[in-house]
Amino acid sequence: MTASREIHLVRRPKGMPVPADFAVVDVSVPPTGEGEVRVQTLIMSVDPYMRPRLNADQALNAPLLGGGIGRVVESRNPKFQEGQLVRQGVGFREVHVSDGKGLTPLNRDPALPLSVYMHALGGTGITAYGGLLEIGALKDGEQVVVSTAGGAVGSVVAQIAKIKGCHVVGLTGSDDKAAWLRDEAGLDAVINYKTQPLAEALKAATPKGIDVYFENVGGAQLDAALTRMNVRGRIPVCGMISTYNGGGEGVKNLFSLIYGRIRMEGFVATDFAHLNAAFMSDMTGWLKAGQIKYQETVLEGFERAPEGLIGLFEGRNTGKMLIHVSD
Amino acid sequence: MTASREIHLVRRPKGMPVPADFAVVDVSVPPTGEGEVRVQTLIMSVDPYMRPRLNADQALNAPLLGGGIGRVVESRNPKFQEGQLVRQGVGFREVHVSDGKGLTPLNRDPALPLSVYMHALGGTGITAYGGLLEIGALKDGEQVVVSTAGGAVGSVVAQIAKIKGCHVVGLTGSDDKAAWLRDEAGLDAVINYKTQPLAEALKAATPKGIDVYFENVGGAQLDAALTRMNVRGRIPVCGMISTYNGGGEGVKNLFSLIYGRIRMEGFVATDFAHLNAAFMSDMTGWLKAGQIKYQETVLEGFERAPEGLIGLFEGRNTGKMLIHVSD
Repeated sequence: MTASREIHLVRRPKGMPVPADFAVVDVSVPPTGEGEVRVQTLIMSVDPYMRPRLNADQALNAPLLGGGIGRVVESRNPKFQEGQLVRQGVGFREVHVSDGKGLTPLNRDPALPLSVYMHALGGTGITAYGGLLEIGALKDGEQVVVSTAGGAVGSVVAQIAKIKGCHVVGLTGSDDKAAWLRDEAGLDAVINYKTQPLAEALKAATPKGIDVYFENVGGAQLDAALTRMNVRGRIPVCGMISTYNGGGEGVKNLFSLIYGRIRMEGFVATDFAHLNAAFMSDMTGWLKAGQIKYQETVLEGFERAPEGLIGLFEGRNTGKMLIHVSD
Repeated sequence: MTASREIHLVRRPKGMPVPADFAVVDVSVPPTGEGEVRVQTLIMSVDPYMRPRLNADQALNAPLLGGGIGRVVESRNPKFQEGQLVRQGVGFREVHVSDGKGLTPLNRDPALPLSVYMHALGGTGITAYGGLLEIGALKDGEQVVVSTAGGAVGSVVAQIAKIKGCHVVGLTGSDDKAAWLRDEAGLDAVINYKTQPLAEALKAATPKGIDVYFENVGGAQLDAALTRMNVRGRIPVCGMISTYNGGGEGVKNLFSLIYGRIRMEGFVATDFAHLNAAFMSDMTGWLKAGQIKYQETVLEGFERAPEGLIGLFEGRNTGKMLIHVSD
C-alpha cells in the first residue's frame, strides 16, 4: 500500500468557500493490479468553474473535481509506459491507481514548460480559443472587450484577439494586472473597474463600440458592456464569477439585446473537442513565437488546493493559479 | 387644403407614459401634387416596441412612429390607384399626402378582415414567425414557453408552436387571457404569473424542461425560465416589457446560460424581410383554416392612440390593440 492524500469537499459552501468546507484526507493506495497504472500527480489546476460545481455535481467526501497532470510511476497496462506524462481528470488525488480511465497521454513539446499544458495549452486555452473564435465568431479587426482580462482565460482571449488584428480592451481589478496587460500582453486599453468609473471608462475605450464582449463576470460589467454593443455583436458567456458566491446585483440592460440583435451564448470547454487539433497547433506556435504571454501563480504543496481555489475569488492569483505537487 | 390630425410626442415619458406626454395636433394637408397621393388612414397599430422609441429615436413634436393601413383617396401617382389599400409607415397621421415613400400596396384576401393585416398578417405575425422559427430555430415537437402569451405576438407564437406539434406553455397576467389561451388557442398549460407562484408553476408545467423560451418580458419571468432551460435551448428576445418603463429587478440567473449552452438573441421584425413570402403564404393558410385564432381590442377614434399605447402597459388589451380611424 502507498500513502496518498485526497482533497475532499466536506460541506457545501454558503457564499464564499472557506477552508473548513474542505479536508485533506489521508488514504492508502492499493497495489497496482493487472491492467492498472499508478500515477503521481505533478501539478493541478484550480479554476473558477469549480465553484458552482461545489453546490451541484461535486459529491461530498469525495475527491474534488478538477484537472491535473501526472506521471505514470508504475504500469501494468500496455497502453502506458513508466515515466509517461498524462493529463488526468480524476479529482484531486496525490497518488492514485487507475485502469487508465480519465488518463490521456500528454506529448510535451520540450521547448515549453510543463505548467503551460495546464493553462494556455490546456482547458484554459481551448476555452479561450473556442469561446472567442467559435462562439464569439470573431472576425479579424473587430472591436473586442474582455472581462477578467488578467485571469487565465481572459488573458489568452485578449492576446488571441490581438493576434487576429482586433482592438482589444481588458477589464481587470488591479493596477498590476492592468500594467501587465498593457505593457506585456499589448492590449490597446485596460480599465481597472475598481478604481475607474466603469461606464465612462468603457465608453472612452470603445469609440467604435463592441463587436465581441467576452463574458466572465456578469453583473455591472455585463450591464456596462451591453450599452456599448454594436449591431449583431456577440457575447460568448464563459463565466459569471460575480454571481458564483451568491452576491451581485441583477443585470438590468438586457433590453439592449433586442435592437442590437445581440447574441449571448454559453459554452464550456468540452464543447470544443472538434477544435483540439487546430487549437494545439495554433497555440503551440503562438507560445513559441512569444505571441501569447502568460503569468502563473504557483502554490507549493498538494494540501494547498483549497487555498488556491478560495484565492481565485479573492483575486490572489496573477494569471493562472496552479498547485505544484511534485516534480 | 384638407383638415387632418397628427398624434405628437410632446414630452419624453419618465417611466409609464401619461396622456400629457402626447398631443392631438390639428394640421392642414396641402393639395395633392403631381406624383403624389392622398391617403386616409383606416386603422393603426399600437405596439410595445413603441415605448422605448419614445426615449430614443422618436422626435418630439412630430408624428408618433407607428404603422397602419390606409386607403388612397386621391392619386396623381401612376403607381397607385384611388381606392387602393396601402400599408403605411408614416407616423400617426389621419390624412396625409405622400410621394409614395413609406407606402406599400396591400393585396387583401377578401375572406379575411382588414384588421388581421395589422396583426397576424402584419408586423405582429412576422415578428412571431421569424422570432420563433428562425431566431428560436424551433424544431417540431419541442418544449416551448411563451411570455405575454395573451398578447398580440405571444398568442401567435404559441399557436405556431402548436401547429409545429410542440408542447406549449403560456405565461399571462389575467385569468380571462389564460382561459382563452387554454380553451380557444389550445395551449397545453397556461400560468397566471400574478396569481400563481411562478417558479413552482413553471416547473410543474414543463416536466421536460424548455427548449425555446420566447421572451417578451424580462425580469422575474426570464429568471424563472432560465432555471428550466434544456441544454442548447434558445431564448429569442422579442421584447422586455417589464423594463420599458424603468421598473423591474435585474436578471439574476444568467449563469444558467453557461452549462446549458443557451443562446439568447435579440431581433426585430424588419430582420425577416427574406421570410415574407413564406410567412404570408403560411399565415394566410393557417388563418383561413382556423389554426391561428386571435382577439382584438379596438379603440374607436384617431385621437385615442395615446390611450391605446398607455393601455398596453396596463394590460388593458385583449389580444391585439388597434385604433380604428375610418372605414
